[in-house]
Amino acid sequence: MSSGESSVGRPLKAGRVRMSKVANGADALFEVFKRWGIRRVFTCPGSTEAAFLNGSLSHPEIDVILTTHESVAVSMADGLSRVTREPSVAYLHANVGLANGIAHLYAAHIARSPVVVINGLKPRSIANRAAFTTAHDTRDFVRQYVKWDWEVLRREAIAEDINRAFKISTTSPRGPTWVGIAQDLLESRGEITVPDRDRYIVRSNVRPGPTAIEEAARTLGDAKRPLLVAGDDVARAEASDEMVALSERLGAPVVAEDRWSLESLSFPTDHPNYLGTYRPGSYVVTQADAIFFAGARAFTEFEPSGSPAIPPSARVIHLHSDAREIAKIYGVDVSLVGDAQVTLNDLLFRLESTGVASAATSEYLRAAREEREQQKGQRIGLHPSEEGPIQVPALVDSLLELSDEQTIIVDDSTTSRTALLDAFNGKRLRPLYTSSSGSLGWAMGAALGIKLGAPGQPVVAFVGDGVFQFGLPALWAAEHYGIAVTYVVVNNQSYAAVGAALERYLGRTLSPAQFPVMDISGPKIASISEGFGVHGIRIDRLSDFKPAFERARDREGPTVIEVMTDTTVLGPPYRPLAKGREGAG
Amino acid sequence: MSSGESSVGRPLKAGRVRMSKVANGADALFEVFKRWGIRRVFTCPGSTEAAFLNGSLSHPEIDVILTTHESVAVSMADGLSRVTREPSVAYLHANVGLANGIAHLYAAHIARSPVVVINGLKPRSIANRAAFTTAHDTRDFVRQYVKWDWEVLRREAIAEDINRAFKISTTSPRGPTWVGIAQDLLESRGEITVPDRDRYIVRSNVRPGPTAIEEAARTLGDAKRPLLVAGDDVARAEASDEMVALSERLGAPVVAEDRWSLESLSFPTDHPNYLGTYRPGSYVVTQADAIFFAGARAFTEFEPSGSPAIPPSARVIHLHSDAREIAKIYGVDVSLVGDAQVTLNDLLFRLESTGVASAATSEYLRAAREEREQQKGQRIGLHPSEEGPIQVPALVDSLLELSDEQTIIVDDSTTSRTALLDAFNGKRLRPLYTSSSGSLGWAMGAALGIKLGAPGQPVVAFVGDGVFQFGLPALWAAEHYGIAVTYVVVNNQSYAAVGAALERYLGRTLSPAQFPVMDISGPKIASISEGFGVHGIRIDRLSDFKPAFERARDREGPTVIEVMTDTTVLGPPYRPLAKGREGAG
Repeated sequence: MSSGESSVGRPLKAGRVRMSKVANGADALFEVFKRWGIRRVFTCPGSTEAAFLNGSLSHPEIDVILTTHESVAVSMADGLSRVTREPSVAYLHANVGLANGIAHLYAAHIARSPVVVINGLKPRSIANRAAFTTAHDTRDFVRQYVKWDWEVLRREAIAEDINRAFKISTTSPRGPTWVGIAQDLLESRGEITVPDRDRYIVRSNVRPGPTAIEEAARTLGDAKRPLLVAGDDVARAEASDEMVALSERLGAPVVAEDRWSLESLSFPTDHPNYLGTYRPGSYVVTQADAIFFAGARAFTEFEPSGSPAIPPSARVIHLHSDAREIAKIYGVDVSLVGDAQVTLNDLLFRLESTGVASAATSEYLRAAREEREQQKGQRIGLHPSEEGPIQVPALVDSLLELSDEQTIIVDDSTTSRTALLDAFNGKRLRPLYTSSSGSLGWAMGAALGIKLGAPGQPVVAFVGDGVFQFGLPALWAAEHYGIAVTYVVVNNQSYAAVGAALERYLGRTLSPAQFPVMDISGPKIASISEGFGVHGIRIDRLSDFKPAFERARDREGPTVIEVMTDTTVLGPPYRPLAKGREGAG
Repeated sequence: MSSGESSVGRPLKAGRVRMSKVANGADALFEVFKRWGIRRVFTCPGSTEAAFLNGSLSHPEIDVILTTHESVAVSMADGLSRVTREPSVAYLHANVGLANGIAHLYAAHIARSPVVVINGLKPRSIANRAAFTTAHDTRDFVRQYVKWDWEVLRREAIAEDINRAFKISTTSPRGPTWVGIAQDLLESRGEITVPDRDRYIVRSNVRPGPTAIEEAARTLGDAKRPLLVAGDDVARAEASDEMVALSERLGAPVVAEDRWSLESLSFPTDHPNYLGTYRPGSYVVTQADAIFFAGARAFTEFEPSGSPAIPPSARVIHLHSDAREIAKIYGVDVSLVGDAQVTLNDLLFRLESTGVASAATSEYLRAAREEREQQKGQRIGLHPSEEGPIQVPALVDSLLELSDEQTIIVDDSTTSRTALLDAFNGKRLRPLYTSSSGSLGWAMGAALGIKLGAPGQPVVAFVGDGVFQFGLPALWAAEHYGIAVTYVVVNNQSYAAVGAALERYLGRTLSPAQFPVMDISGPKIASISEGFGVHGIRIDRLSDFKPAFERARDREGPTVIEVMTDTTVLGPPYRPLAKGREGAG
């Protein structure tokens, strides 16, 4: 099975389900959901959803998962879609519920998650009158973050419109869709035709034409110092094996896409050719004479860059399933629009048939590895003894050491992210999900959706203390449904990212203690978690992490481990070594 | 001073502050803020705000109030503006921070709060490249909820644009505005001209022309059964005294605007002519031959109404500062566009000069009062003994009994709202703020802003357990700044509003225990509050409320009182008497 389609490409049954009919609006929803393999609907309902909730009593095959904030409903659906690569449903209430879901809908949009957002709207007979919880142009709130937005116009079209939303969400390039449905239509009775889903599967995992493949193969074959950038699209297409084969055939170093674009890791981090994330100014980037962005974005800039993002002398090949990502900012020499798995296979076949192999000089790869080793050496300086204040690099090392290959890490740790990504180097790849949206709180709910989608795998959410507050209501769903996620909360008691930005802006004219409004100390995170019925434990020494983590892993429900880390470290990206700590280690 | 302008109508100093200049973007913001009397800026900042945060060190006269979620920043600003009737500022970070603030911006929009939202945007040099935390059309997210949205185009215009936002927000009809400012402009250095605020005060508290006043006076004078509807615009214009004078001159009953539009109470609830809220189908409405909507909205419909919203035989007079509210749904006989205070004074003068007085038959008022007394009688049936499960009507009676006339009630209690509004009848008016936005969690932050604006008055937030979870991060700001708000949390352990909607939809075919997804039991609200460092207490018996409330009142910081109420009562609007309790009392 090619991953670009996921299992929605498979017929549900051997026999054909042709068009059929249901008797009311709510049943139409359930019938479409069922045909698209939906087993759960994430919601925080209101009065507009009464008919749907009532319908759920007659459709026990679909679980209505209650959340206590729409941000949680959306991030859970997003998480579920990311790990299963299947469509998911978030059902939001009116304009206010939708508003609460927008920030994480942005995260789903960037991740190309096929989340179908259903939005319960007030009855049409009062919606034109500025009724309670209505907006004049509801679609304006979502248009930028969905592939398709539509308000159902009449009862007969309910199943057709929802079916279309699933079709569009699951067609490459994938992404969220939004359908508004008025309460009166949902509550209406009368025959509704339900489309035969199997006839709405579009096999959209295309591959580039032969000329583009030929150009890419020649460009890589001619390069002396080719660099491969493994991006999220590779992970989504499950094409890691193909990336490894390409890297080994070319003898080329591989980096993950840069940390501001990265949503997952798609190359084995213990592979000798893997050299961390893409960093303008690094040896491996500046010395490359050809760079192959494979399913990566180029780029999601955080700030204007000091170094050229791409060295001017390098030839650029860019593969992506979404043509809009190619030559978005910087021009390219070869463009490859297509599914990463199919396209990489085409490329490998072409390289094989023309006999191109190990074009890269061993000198380039060797020097690049050396640079990487030096960086690791610097990093060791950040590991103090076990008994000092907990340092994040030591924490993430411990976390990765204690978690097996099956463990899924869901990251939403802002300033700790770089340390986490660094820690992966040289270790066997574990599945990682993160968000490049900057929408804080995402992982609190996403980790729950991921666990529901991968019940056999341990799931660890790695979040900051600020993030914890943004996603707090997720703890209610975690407890209520007994979802066994281990939350590791890095409590540095501050908005360190704000501090880092101030330091960038000010230089070192002020000490961090003088920075305004970055101190968010106070909340007892473990204790708040206990208030939600979630097992909470606070640790102040790194040596306590292992027993806490192991106990959490053995529990059936969720656990929050509050890790009190060194509050004097603002963390990367701007300050790899804290002042006064330079000599430590 | 006429209230329509609030104190922004007064020059800041005796001497004229003409145009002046500042040296950088951040200083321009502070200078404009200062001129408009801003003493606090509510924010949850990110890297785009570094220059502003740094600037705050040189502008100690303005407090930067940190919140841990943008929804809190917006609702605090809204609350402050509601109580002071002055402009306020919420400073949000990028597209994600803005997204988190939209739901409560809707509340500020409905309340016509002059909240100026400043939105820190990424530098222009990368914003065109789909940079980190950017949107293609940021303004689409706010346009429906602000009077003006604008992105600053160049450094020289920063002060001009922000000044314009204040001008527009504070000009009647008031409302929020939004200005986006790119990081590079904020960080830029170079002379910026700051406008002389005093020349941007528009005295917009207009009054209708003489013909309209004459028509209104004649219509009221001719009526035998005139009904006055006192709306929010009366409260905003501080025209309660004028409403009392009008009611007494006409011998007319007064109702507050209907519960779905109501944001405050603007008529003394212990006045003998006060008869609760506007209810289609009630005697006082159906029998009226003239209805004067004074600053009320007609209407914010929750659902299609069974009774005619306005009796067809009644003549309709509508006064509002926003012409769009008049004849919005139903036609009117007399329209009065103007400030409530000035216009009511004009009307009173006209009635006096033509000798119109006590036109209303005493029979209408007497019968209307009788209907009201009967409703009160029914309500007494809901008061069980002090030792049973706590009933909300008994709780709100106790709350109003224990709070003095100065106490400000900030309501966000969904299904308990009707009980609260009913409890006001016959008691001396206390200031009440609520939101007709349906944006849950609003009061958690709004109460904090209200307390900052009225430090001498006790402030009680009356919220549901669902609302508590929506607004949880407000507790961080409450504790951090030691803001003495008493949160009374009605913990019925359910989304009762969802249950009420299901009951409306289904009739009594199911018992509430069978209703899907309305059970949100679990969180220990008092204990969670303690985790935030906020004093928390849980009470299971009504007799414990008084000591808990009195202790809270005497404390310097915030308190959360978790009140465990009867979980079998879904509460109004759909179920005034719980099944099985009809005989109680």
